[in-house]
Amino acid sequence: MPNQTVSILGLGAMGAAITARLRDTGHDTVVWNRTAAKTEPHVAAGSRAAATVAEAAALGDVVLVVLLDHLSVREHLDPVAAELKGKVVVNLTTTTPNQARATAAWAAEHGLTYLDGAIMAVPEMIGTPVSRLLYSGDRGAYDAARGILETLGAADYEGEDAGLASLKDMALLTSMYQLFSGFIQAAAMMRTVGVPAAETAREVSAWLGAILPHTELFAGVIDSRDYSAGQSVDFTRAAVGSLIAASREQGVSADFLEPLLSRLDELSATGRGGADWTSVNEQLAIG
Amino acid sequence: MPNQTVSILGLGAMGAAITARLRDTGHDTVVWNRTAAKTEPHVAAGSRAAATVAEAAALGDVVLVVLLDHLSVREHLDPVAAELKGKVVVNLTTTTPNQARATAAWAAEHGLTYLDGAIMAVPEMIGTPVSRLLYSGDRGAYDAARGILETLGAADYEGEDAGLASLKDMALLTSMYQLFSGFIQAAAMMRTVGVPAAETAREVSAWLGAILPHTELFAGVIDSRDYSAGQSVDFTRAAVGSLIAASREQGVSADFLEPLLSRLDELSATGRGGADWTSVNEQLAIG
Repeated sequence: MPNQTVSILGLGAMGAAITARLRDTGHDTVVWNRTAAKTEPHVAAGSRAAATVAEAAALGDVVLVVLLDHLSVREHLDPVAAELKGKVVVNLTTTTPNQARATAAWAAEHGLTYLDGAIMAVPEMIGTPVSRLLYSGDRGAYDAARGILETLGAADYEGEDAGLASLKDMALLTSMYQLFSGFIQAAAMMRTVGVPAAETAREVSAWLGAILPHTELFAGVIDSRDYSAGQSVDFTRAAVGSLIAASREQGVSADFLEPLLSRLDELSATGRGGADWTSVNEQLAIG
Repeated sequence: MPNQTVSILGLGAMGAAITARLRDTGHDTVVWNRTAAKTEPHVAAGSRAAATVAEAAALGDVVLVVLLDHLSVREHLDPVAAELKGKVVVNLTTTTPNQARATAAWAAEHGLTYLDGAIMAVPEMIGTPVSRLLYSGDRGAYDAARGILETLGAADYEGEDAGLASLKDMALLTSMYQLFSGFIQAAAMMRTVGVPAAETAREVSAWLGAILPHTELFAGVIDSRDYSAGQSVDFTRAAVGSLIAASREQGVSADFLEPLLSRLDELSATGRGGADWTSVNEQLAIG
């Protein structure tokens, strides 16, 4: 599919990195940004500037949307549905799965081919071997834009449900922020005895790196829903209770661990204190 | 230091593994357990049984304590302080740093040489290359018992403050439980669209393994206390807010992330929304 023109809506840090990467790899790029001045260095480097979203939509075969949030996506796309007809629209803006699904429904209603993307990378990583992007929604749109998408990083198609890419992104980022807050608490605990965070980071990295494969053992238990063996809820309650006590003794808040203890307490209070503690996953269903 | 006799107090899963390892490597072992029947297989395998804690204390050059918790340690050691005089007492029971310090103070008062240990391993790992034990307290006790301690796994001496081994143990376990709860939430989110936990575990392992070195970048910021660059509190509030919304949209509780959002909200409300988000570590000091 040669000579596709790519229009990029939004020149924040991520939009700018994507534009630069596409331009550097010989693609024809059209840029639009709310603050028009931000297009200037891109024009100087060989991109074309569009004065309006409608113009960018009309010029591009593929339209990459890299805006602030879901509201700004809908604010800018809704008025140009006609111009987007026949184009492949790939929304790389971070949105929740339901927001992605809502935009996909809007796109279907207006006859657009819509693909929702999630970027597992920071701007500096775009186009490098460690960059990975997830896509879901219209399979035809994915196939049509694939050459462009693979320029940005490893491309994974997650399925027709437009919410899937966002969901996986959100699940992985959820696990990341909990890892980071665990490190931050550990560093605060060790600082009380004068240990620098750099040393705690080395210890935490080595320890968590060694323990990561354990998640696959837990997964086996969770998938089987057989919680009859393994480390019990009550043992884990005692252990987590000790961690909370130890942290507070040192003058460091242990709030980050409280929700886990509450879930374990719930299990124990309802007669499931002898079950494998990973049964806590069953408590997370709302309603 | 040849022909040291090691007394092991407590034959739970960990005490039994330690006894077996010491016996298998040619050490003279004496065992005591509250339920005496548990000593029988060890006697059959070549250990000696002590009828009382006092007898075990009298027979051992080194006394390893592997009991349920701090209370049971003190319950069993307090009455035999006289018999323990001149012995090296190594307490491997999981206790908080202040509990370890309290036992060290008691030991000093009674003229015992006391070392507090923390086991970074499950019983199955004892004696294997992945087993690691931390020790703190009396340096002389550590040097005297070192040959025995190194039989159990890599041995790290953390310093004279008896609470240090426990503190590092607690800090690392804190980071571990937050990683595990992050995985458990991620698995619950992905299960809503039919993805098995085994697949989420593979994704989470790969992602967190790649992101772990990031903790060292954060550590540099935390140690410098210069929070003027990096990803802002307000950006992170929005991101974590999206994760919470996405999880709830899928019908999965996001309670595990709430304390982090609360801390970020506090920072923003007090005019620090533009600071690097890892400044959240400063919020963890109690009082």
